[in-house]
Amino acid sequence: MNELKTYLEEHKDTHLDQLKDLLSIPSVSTDPERRDDVRRAAQWVKEAMEAAGLTARIDDTPGHPIVYGERLNAGADAPTILIYGHYDVQPPDPLELWDSGPFEPTIRDGKIVARGAADDKGQFLTHIKALEAHMAVRGELPVNVKVLIEGEEEIGSKNLAPYLEAHKEALASDVVVISDTHMFAPGVPSITYGLRGLTYFELEIEGPDHDLHSGLYGGGVANPINVLCDVIARLKDDSGRIQIEGFYDDVRDLTDEERAAWATLPFDEEGFRAEAGSEQLTGEAGFTTLERLWARPTLDCNGVVGGFTGEGAKTVLPSVARAKFSCRLVPDQDPRDIEDKVEAHLARIIPDSVRFKLTRMHGGQPVIVSTESDAIQAAGRALTEAFGGETVMIRGGGSIPVVADFKRILGVDSVLMGFGLPDDRLHSPNEKFDLAQYFGGILAAALFLDEIAPSA
Amino acid sequence: MNELKTYLEEHKDTHLDQLKDLLSIPSVSTDPERRDDVRRAAQWVKEAMEAAGLTARIDDTPGHPIVYGERLNAGADAPTILIYGHYDVQPPDPLELWDSGPFEPTIRDGKIVARGAADDKGQFLTHIKALEAHMAVRGELPVNVKVLIEGEEEIGSKNLAPYLEAHKEALASDVVVISDTHMFAPGVPSITYGLRGLTYFELEIEGPDHDLHSGLYGGGVANPINVLCDVIARLKDDSGRIQIEGFYDDVRDLTDEERAAWATLPFDEEGFRAEAGSEQLTGEAGFTTLERLWARPTLDCNGVVGGFTGEGAKTVLPSVARAKFSCRLVPDQDPRDIEDKVEAHLARIIPDSVRFKLTRMHGGQPVIVSTESDAIQAAGRALTEAFGGETVMIRGGGSIPVVADFKRILGVDSVLMGFGLPDDRLHSPNEKFDLAQYFGGILAAALFLDEIAPSA
Repeated sequence: MNELKTYLEEHKDTHLDQLKDLLSIPSVSTDPERRDDVRRAAQWVKEAMEAAGLTARIDDTPGHPIVYGERLNAGADAPTILIYGHYDVQPPDPLELWDSGPFEPTIRDGKIVARGAADDKGQFLTHIKALEAHMAVRGELPVNVKVLIEGEEEIGSKNLAPYLEAHKEALASDVVVISDTHMFAPGVPSITYGLRGLTYFELEIEGPDHDLHSGLYGGGVANPINVLCDVIARLKDDSGRIQIEGFYDDVRDLTDEERAAWATLPFDEEGFRAEAGSEQLTGEAGFTTLERLWARPTLDCNGVVGGFTGEGAKTVLPSVARAKFSCRLVPDQDPRDIEDKVEAHLARIIPDSVRFKLTRMHGGQPVIVSTESDAIQAAGRALTEAFGGETVMIRGGGSIPVVADFKRILGVDSVLMGFGLPDDRLHSPNEKFDLAQYFGGILAAALFLDEIAPSA
Repeated sequence: MNELKTYLEEHKDTHLDQLKDLLSIPSVSTDPERRDDVRRAAQWVKEAMEAAGLTARIDDTPGHPIVYGERLNAGADAPTILIYGHYDVQPPDPLELWDSGPFEPTIRDGKIVARGAADDKGQFLTHIKALEAHMAVRGELPVNVKVLIEGEEEIGSKNLAPYLEAHKEALASDVVVISDTHMFAPGVPSITYGLRGLTYFELEIEGPDHDLHSGLYGGGVANPINVLCDVIARLKDDSGRIQIEGFYDDVRDLTDEERAAWATLPFDEEGFRAEAGSEQLTGEAGFTTLERLWARPTLDCNGVVGGFTGEGAKTVLPSVARAKFSCRLVPDQDPRDIEDKVEAHLARIIPDSVRFKLTRMHGGQPVIVSTESDAIQAAGRALTEAFGGETVMIRGGGSIPVVADFKRILGVDSVLMGFGLPDDRLHSPNEKFDLAQYFGGILAAALFLDEIAPSA
């Protein structure tokens, strides 16, 4: 282990140069003009895999390519891990808010600033550098390793699930390892063992079949905006509890252990409020903020529009109003089941004086894994060794749809060992990745291979 | 009286030709490119006044000119009437839906089809033709007459009130006569003795001070769209009654006589519903549709917008949501008082978890006049004589702000004797005015002068 540490210490400059190199490729997956850059990034990743001793290839998809590499010399008794990451990045807009070019990686205050620094180039690269270190120091890897780095995560990973289906046997593994989340706080190594799911709707309510004069008709007919507001308001009660019949049936209760553990986390409630720019934190009664964010379902409107929205006043009684709303779901809620319940509930509460149409937009399964698994325990030891401090088990409020895909298609749980920090400004100008997190991440990834190997 | 009738009968062709002439001038007040046409219409009206024996002039305003004419030879014992109308028209768009050119007046099925036919060129012209007939047949008018025809009614009459203030003494009169409404139904001569007022608001609710990720923050902070919907929903109860404290304090109750009279009106409820294109008629419990439209205040959202409103799904927890809403007011509600009550109510019900801003957009006083006044009784007799059938006393659900201006500035009530019909398609393609209503209107206007004269 000391040899590994020495090697990594001696190669910091190289590792940093290589990260800069990767970050300078503008692999913006949503931008058709960046198509060649995206492929250039894929090529870069393939070569990095080969330099780490993997057999690697670029697999085309109907969209951007997937880079796949493997080294399976550890024998049948050794576990097989599948490392996942993505080499594509968000668009850098708005450009004028960057202090340096988004694709001109710049070191400031011990942080590397560039689009993709933490999401996810800097994070997945830790694993490839860890494999390379093992090969350099020991000449072989302690476990069988498969690495899948995709190029469409920022645009919905729509070609990943078909790829997993098509390569189901070749991708068979014991655990998926993903570094695309962040630590709870600096100095608090963290593993994310639960994520919320999602179900998203658009509701259209039509009153009159054309816009009317509010003087000549007001008081006589249903106003679709007023009805829409009534309907949305009736989806929750004053304590924030969602009123859709059966909505909470499958919600897994927090365990006493979880509540106790989360209560000890160094959560900066006032900092969270200030960062959100809200007057107050608020939500479902009976739960702490962290509990509401990680373990309770939500119902939030994402957009609303109807009638006259220009400058000034127009006395229209409009024909149509629309809202988009979505529920973050928690284990063991099922998006399809919730969709059915929402639809049935709306059919019950929307008055006969209007017509309505509910569209199911998309959904994703919530995820929760046991914190007692060998892989998570191994990752926890590696993180503690690399970063110091006890590794905490946390959940996330968002969704990482690929985690559910890996579970559904390959039947494998994921270990989310994130090296980012909460202030990494993902998807925003001046995205950064702390160098200490990058180097610590490489060490943790290297140690993890030993920890999960049978000899450890 | 028979001489007048004979004269009018003999001059129908001339009167129709003159209406066609006026309707062919595209005096669209909102269109800067029509500025010269608007002035041409003013000139036309001035000449028509002069042909009717009035002393007339064009008074410039910061916007379009006001045409003013008078003939005050009836002596101090005779009443003075002020006839009001407007020579400007709505834009003709969408042009492709017209069956003939909007400014190429065309006779079809006994109706003249053109922009402005009923609103208001055809209607105010009846009065000028009536004055002309009196002069031709009798050589003098039975009452003192002032005529004010403005050119900015369709764009808010913003220069009219200052004009009334500036010419307060010159415009002194006993009653204002306006033909810019419609009869309740064909063959049902009608006088509108009440109109609703208006107060219009924009409410902005800010939750977070920037858009947030609904996964990372959902459940933790207030969502401004959900809050806005709650607030709007709480402005009315399930029976449609407005919940703003004190909102109904000054609402004048319908009299038993009004309710009885309205119940006998030939109101086609199903036709009204079908015309609105609504599934059902609905509104405040305990009142008939006509009562709700004419004598009950409303609260209708006119527009709403917030968050993501494009195609597809975006999991944003938005920063801001806005709604425009307005109340139609009834006698004796006061717009300023209602504005204060709405603001106080919102301050009470909007939660501390958000910031809000309420903007008072504009308002107008409701209007009600006694149906027992000499002028209204005289108008009723004239209408019955001209159109046959008993004249009914109705109210309107909309607002005619100038009526409140005349009352406030000149201290004079208005007689709304409209010659239009409910299907005149005002502001829409193929606007029309029935020729029988036009000729009947000239006769009614002529008879009215006799009916209101002291000798009558």
